[in-house]
Amino acid sequence: MEKIKEIAEKNLRKVRETKPLIHNITNYVVMNYSANTLLAMGASPVMAHAQNEVEEMVKMAGALVINIGTLSDEWIDSMVLAGKKANKMNIPVILDPVGSGATSYRTASADKIINNVKVSVIRGNASEILSLRKLNYSTKGVDSVYKVEDASHSAKLLAKEMKTVIAITGAIDLITDGVNTVRIANGHPLMSYVTGTGCSATATIAAFLAVDDNPLTAAATALGFFGLAGELAAKKASAPGSFMIKVLDALYEISPEDLKEGIRISFE
Amino acid sequence: MEKIKEIAEKNLRKVRETKPLIHNITNYVVMNYSANTLLAMGASPVMAHAQNEVEEMVKMAGALVINIGTLSDEWIDSMVLAGKKANKMNIPVILDPVGSGATSYRTASADKIINNVKVSVIRGNASEILSLRKLNYSTKGVDSVYKVEDASHSAKLLAKEMKTVIAITGAIDLITDGVNTVRIANGHPLMSYVTGTGCSATATIAAFLAVDDNPLTAAATALGFFGLAGELAAKKASAPGSFMIKVLDALYEISPEDLKEGIRISFE
Amino acid sequence: MEKIKEIAEKNLRKVRETKPLIHNITNYVVMNYSANTLLAMGASPVMAHAQNEVEEMVKMAGALVINIGTLSDEWIDSMVLAGKKANKMNIPVILDPVGSGATSYRTASADKIINNVKVSVIRGNASEILSLRKLNYSTKGVDSVYKVEDASHSAKLLAKEMKTVIAITGAIDLITDGVNTVRIANGHPLMSYVTGTGCSATATIAAFLAVDDNPLTAAATALGFFGLAGELAAKKASAPGSFMIKVLDALYEISPEDLKEGIRISFE
Repeated sequence: MEKIKEIAEKNLRKVRETKPLIHNITNYVVMNYSANTLLAMGASPVMAHAQNEVEEMVKMAGALVINIGTLSDEWIDSMVLAGKKANKMNIPVILDPVGSGATSYRTASADKIINNVKVSVIRGNASEILSLRKLNYSTKGVDSVYKVEDASHSAKLLAKEMKTVIAITGAIDLITDGVNTVRIANGHPLMSYVTGTGCSATATIAAFLAVDDNPLTAAATALGFFGLAGELAAKKASAPGSFMIKVLDALYEISPEDLKEGIRISFE
Repeated sequence: MEKIKEIAEKNLRKVRETKPLIHNITNYVVMNYSANTLLAMGASPVMAHAQNEVEEMVKMAGALVINIGTLSDEWIDSMVLAGKKANKMNIPVILDPVGSGATSYRTASADKIINNVKVSVIRGNASEILSLRKLNYSTKGVDSVYKVEDASHSAKLLAKEMKTVIAITGAIDLITDGVNTVRIANGHPLMSYVTGTGCSATATIAAFLAVDDNPLTAAATALGFFGLAGELAAKKASAPGSFMIKVLDALYEISPEDLKEGIRISFE
Repeated sequence: MEKIKEIAEKNLRKVRETKPLIHNITNYVVMNYSANTLLAMGASPVMAHAQNEVEEMVKMAGALVINIGTLSDEWIDSMVLAGKKANKMNIPVILDPVGSGATSYRTASADKIINNVKVSVIRGNASEILSLRKLNYSTKGVDSVYKVEDASHSAKLLAKEMKTVIAITGAIDLITDGVNTVRIANGHPLMSYVTGTGCSATATIAAFLAVDDNPLTAAATALGFFGLAGELAAKKASAPGSFMIKVLDALYEISPEDLKEGIRISFE
């Protein structure tokens, strides 16, 4: 417990010091907010999706975000291309399977990425994570119809099977590698009224992956950080517009010591 | 008069209670703000444009938004595909012909959609609505060079001919099905200093279409709601940046009762 | 010195009075913020990228922005098409070579545009400007690894050679046509924590190019204006989220007289 709080502190300090370049192949809706999330915390975002350049771009990055929120065939091809190159260079990859389970195309695209790219972390809501196991759960759009706990068993099995870390975000986030499971209690209900908070949580994990070799602690501490930003924002704003702006402010203002103190983490 | 105020109240209550999924095929500029508009009011947005998935996605939706703000051939094809499927499933479709009249490609694209998809509502500024009747009005970019009243006659003829509802937004919005015409006096001049307010008004109508079978009352009450949000925002902010954030706040804060009281509606 | 302050005042007044249409072919990340920047200051933005319409759209515009921030082959083709048409119509073009130098594809794309389109102004950070001269400088992502002064010599040579104006933005902006060089000391460090401030500075220059025949004074006064907005924003906000909103507010609130007084300009 004490140790992971110190890791959180160290990770945020390292992000601020090293300003890791995070390569995002992400959806149109959240590009701006994700880039601002990364800048606010001290990282350096780049968005690049052309097949002509993703391999060259990802080589410079500390981590790669693959987010299928507004996908199309060309973009999926770029994601696979960038992901494979990242794997070769030992650059961590995080997948955000936005809307997987909502359409067969999204589920198949998430599947294609998983089958071609070794991902260090998958972050999604409960519906999305359940869809990855092809258990015929159905969902609606991009908001989860399941709760985190509904997917916890599946997440553990899948994490073990895939040798990856799975992070399910919701009221209380669950992060597991199939053996160890961590829960993060930071966050605020207003987050679900702002588009791209899930995607920005993913981007935050990417920044932490760039400075922490352990995907489990990187994901857990990043979600604690992002959730804490939500908590602080909610102290200053009570409606979604102001709240989303205050989240960016908080990502900039939270010190490594604040994070150490504020992260609420528990082990299973 | 009393009745439509009650419909406004009921529509907003229903949106909050049922959180309808709104499928948006919309432009890059406003995707984020439109999604945040829908989330703030209590609806559930999804953006999806790939031909591989639009038909499957729209089946789950309460309404479909087609917005041609940053169009290209592939996207237009997806819009038609999704629109036809929505028609088959009796899911209402709203068209936002952004910039129609500015280039022949936009005018032709709006035309193509109208000829292939039965739309319940068309929302545009006066220039855009005039362009739909091929009366050789010219316009400039995406801002209207005409006033609402310049297009009111054309809108009525077109609405009757197309058996659709046409909503022209401006200082005072005009909503007509060709027989009945309603005017909404809510809104604020700062709205024209924020990109995507028109597109977000369209998204708001979509959310109301998902809970109200009558496109005329759905469109009118939605525009009253969105305009009221602008009015409340203008009480807290006097410049466009802060204003656009406060609009999102207001969409979250306005209660059904507030809307009933605040909507300013008149019949022709 | 006095003269350029008066030009600044006049340019902003003209933008407010004539509301020039600015055609942007720009990247997905900043489309929304760039459009809001232009609207807040009083200009009229339009985003259009389809090859079917860019030539028709640009004909109506006061200036064209070409920004390669999230490029792909199709978009580059549209940029060249629009740029050539703008040249024919004597409409000024500004190039923002985002990330040039980071990947060979970006460098080649910037090169392709420069070789096919006569640009009035190029605005970039030091790394991007250095990359245009193929001097084998390397960079990382889209943030500069060089300081403005590192690129000043190259910028002057390149501006003279290309008969264009080059604007390098950083702590102190440098604007040169190869003969005359101007420095602008407005701005604030928080700007580097918000995505799209560089791109929005470019859009601001475009609006000023639409009302000022001299690209050197247009670029210098626009950067003074945008930088002053940053300074005023920093008086009201101390973190990036609130800051970016206050920048939009300031672009709306700064009067021509305020600009005349606040611009900090020096000649070499």
